[in-house]
Amino acid sequence: MSVNCPFCSIAAGKASASIVYEDAAIMAFMDLNPTNVGHTLVVPKQHWTNLYEIPEDVLAEVVAVVKRVSAAVKKTVDAEGISVLQLNGRASGQSVMHFHVHIIPRFTGDQISKAIGAMVEHHRTIKPDKNELDKIARKIRENL
Amino acid sequence: MSVNCPFCSIAAGKASASIVYEDAAIMAFMDLNPTNVGHTLVVPKQHWTNLYEIPEDVLAEVVAVVKRVSAAVKKTVDAEGISVLQLNGRASGQSVMHFHVHIIPRFTGDQISKAIGAMVEHHRTIKPDKNELDKIARKIRENL
Repeated sequence: MSVNCPFCSIAAGKASASIVYEDAAIMAFMDLNPTNVGHTLVVPKQHWTNLYEIPEDVLAEVVAVVKRVSAAVKKTVDAEGISVLQLNGRASGQSVMHFHVHIIPRFTGDQISKAIGAMVEHHRTIKPDKNELDKIARKIRENL
Repeated sequence: MSVNCPFCSIAAGKASASIVYEDAAIMAFMDLNPTNVGHTLVVPKQHWTNLYEIPEDVLAEVVAVVKRVSAAVKKTVDAEGISVLQLNGRASGQSVMHFHVHIIPRFTGDQISKAIGAMVEHHRTIKPDKNELDKIARKIRENL
């Protein structure tokens, strides 16, 4: 358990949460600042900061719960879609430094669509060519 | 293989891609419309439309590759953070109907931050109370 970590506190039963799912290793509960109604978080009970730290076997357990809870969230709020989001580092928007996966119900034309729309349109105008993509792919392969 | 599916074509070697990783079941390659330089996709070679369809064991294989490729992408483009994103349904922004995971390098103040920022600020003003969250959590549990 990490001191002053809100998700460790929830996992230890020391802080309350609106719990959706719990087993020996994994918990799912409602996000306190939902992007849409039904926005749920899935976390490992043990503290790992991010995707780089979490062991592969625990990650597999987390995503099995994400799959199951996503279907339940979709049904519950009658969502048209589900966005699954996992952030690493403050620059990516991670605010709680305990690995977690967001399950966000989505609806046509919701606020997320509007926020992302303009950005996507911009990026369509700077489409890189195949040579550039091959070059970066080669570098990533070398770093695997 | 699904007819007219671009990712099935890549998996079958019938369409080219800037490939980062490949094994018997999984591939990773550069997104043709990157949000930031280094934007990579991880896909199962077999066709499943979304998170609801993909079997748990294949999902575990996919995320193990996501973890490994994320670290390599971060290193390659010297990213401050990594956002992992998986979309289900057109309402969520899914455009290719073959399950895939986005690995997006992130930098402080990048365009994704700007697009999301205003939306997050808005949602902080509509924070739901504990009773509302408990109620939706109970409904999701019933649908698990």
